[in-house]
Amino acid sequence: MDLTEREIIRRYFDVPELRLPRPEIELGVGDDAAILRIPAGKRLVVSADVLAAGVHFPERAQANLIACRALAVNLSDLAAMAAEPLCFTLALTLPRADSEWLRAFSRGLAKLAGEYGCSLVGGDLSRGPLQIAIQVHGLCESGRELRRDGARPGQKVYLTGWAGDGALGLASLGIDTPGIELNAAPENLPAACLAHFHAAYFQPQPRVEFALAAAPLIACAIDVSDGLLGDAGHLAAASSVGIELDPERLPFSPSARCCATPQSRIRAALAGGDDYELCFTADPAHEERLMEIAADMNLPLTRIGEVTAGEGAHCAGKELSLTSFDHFGGWEANALE
Amino acid sequence: MDLTEREIIRRYFDVPELRLPRPEIELGVGDDAAILRIPAGKRLVVSADVLAAGVHFPERAQANLIACRALAVNLSDLAAMAAEPLCFTLALTLPRADSEWLRAFSRGLAKLAGEYGCSLVGGDLSRGPLQIAIQVHGLCESGRELRRDGARPGQKVYLTGWAGDGALGLASLGIDTPGIELNAAPENLPAACLAHFHAAYFQPQPRVEFALAAAPLIACAIDVSDGLLGDAGHLAAASSVGIELDPERLPFSPSARCCATPQSRIRAALAGGDDYELCFTADPAHEERLMEIAADMNLPLTRIGEVTAGEGAHCAGKELSLTSFDHFGGWEANALE
Repeated sequence: MDLTEREIIRRYFDVPELRLPRPEIELGVGDDAAILRIPAGKRLVVSADVLAAGVHFPERAQANLIACRALAVNLSDLAAMAAEPLCFTLALTLPRADSEWLRAFSRGLAKLAGEYGCSLVGGDLSRGPLQIAIQVHGLCESGRELRRDGARPGQKVYLTGWAGDGALGLASLGIDTPGIELNAAPENLPAACLAHFHAAYFQPQPRVEFALAAAPLIACAIDVSDGLLGDAGHLAAASSVGIELDPERLPFSPSARCCATPQSRIRAALAGGDDYELCFTADPAHEERLMEIAADMNLPLTRIGEVTAGEGAHCAGKELSLTSFDHFGGWEANALE
Repeated sequence: MDLTEREIIRRYFDVPELRLPRPEIELGVGDDAAILRIPAGKRLVVSADVLAAGVHFPERAQANLIACRALAVNLSDLAAMAAEPLCFTLALTLPRADSEWLRAFSRGLAKLAGEYGCSLVGGDLSRGPLQIAIQVHGLCESGRELRRDGARPGQKVYLTGWAGDGALGLASLGIDTPGIELNAAPENLPAACLAHFHAAYFQPQPRVEFALAAAPLIACAIDVSDGLLGDAGHLAAASSVGIELDPERLPFSPSARCCATPQSRIRAALAGGDDYELCFTADPAHEERLMEIAADMNLPLTRIGEVTAGEGAHCAGKELSLTSFDHFGGWEANALE
């Protein structure tokens, strides 16, 4: 295993599968920096997320799944702004140069990059504890982006996909997730449920397509990474409103209903994080059209609450924000190994 | 020490010192992503560099110096493209939330950000082994960027600043740098030399001002991060030319002359890396004007070689590329603690 940095880049990163042709990219991997041409009238949308081994994923997880998750959580931020993915940079630190690991990582990255037309344009590779820092760039029409501060009393709150499967996915990996428990040890769960949870955790689906189609009908949006209550709380704070979530309306997947108690499911949805679904608010007059757009994509879409003149995000009257995920005070930190 | 993620961001990162007013920044820290407006006729230049504790800096180094170095090496990539710094994102993983460390880190970051008008627009904060992944964004006039592929036979090769002080700085920290030795143990070096090496390592000066002023006279450029021979080799390869460096012309600082043998100095310059000076090629007709521009900035500028019709970068006839820094095959990897 005597791969040089340059050889690693040539074999696994400066490859056609990751170098997607886009007229906006004048210069990609290979120089001191990449050069982008932003079309007139468009805005550049920029977001960065880092995943550390042992914190955001188990160190021994499959490399292709780690790559998928790392890019997906970044694309999810673009979805939350209703931005079309353009390109990304990758700052990767690896404890060693393992060809097999790198090949799988590159393949996983290329799969998702190809699906979303998001080209790798640069980055940095070095030795160190396994971490993947990705920064994504997207484009949106000027003034059309979805910010967090557009919620107004009278609007309803909606959620794409299922709630809580990300945290149940973490639990299904055998990771300690206090208060969020499955009905059986992972190896005794139905195989289909286990596969569903695993995919929910490692291969979250960035809701880019839905966000781009539905953006004109949406008032404000966030992607659910810290748990529904915490993220709805961010919308409430940025918009100076209150948000009331209805626990009876939280959409649970068949696997969540099969494998977790109602209490665990609700806790996973509200405080578990890692779902990477879109939580947004909209005028109820748009509900029918929003439901049609989602149905056309076979995407569950559920009204889960409403915007009020109050403050903070609540569920069944309780403000549960203390239980939402936090890296430095949170229950999940250091739980992985 | 019970700081939450949100509180850390509010106290140390979403602060006026890092939120510099720029008309191009429509939305900065606080939403799912930042939004940038790129002026017509300008190109966006994007580069990412990651620094891992124990690999790129000693874990116990002062937080303000770590921050300086992390941002400086990124700004240096913008200088190498002749791009004006605009903004950056920061993906920071920390083993723990230590207010004192964070305060110093934030101050160090703000100092350099302020000097270069480079605003923090977003990022990610989480628990994990200490790593700093920064992505910088700069602007350049369309078609005015300095790429690596513009070297042509007959041009001369130039270097800003001093050669080798970065690697000697590493040695002065007591880090094992095989083949690059100081004349005495760090504690027995003259204090002024020690301070000089320390600053060279932790506070490299991105040559942005020089690059912007001199760009029209420069044919191609790279910043010296892997050692002069390796980086000149990148220019040679990208331009399909040869580069001959003259060891007699390498510019050494008074401290390097004072504290290192000629052999160590040359090795530090050619293979040591970490200098973050600009190595560029230009038509010799521009030399006088280039020297004037540098002199106006009190910046040493030295002709160190020439572009030939051959291939690869050589010094005194030898191709020493095997000794240049490489993270996975290199002599420096894992040398820090």
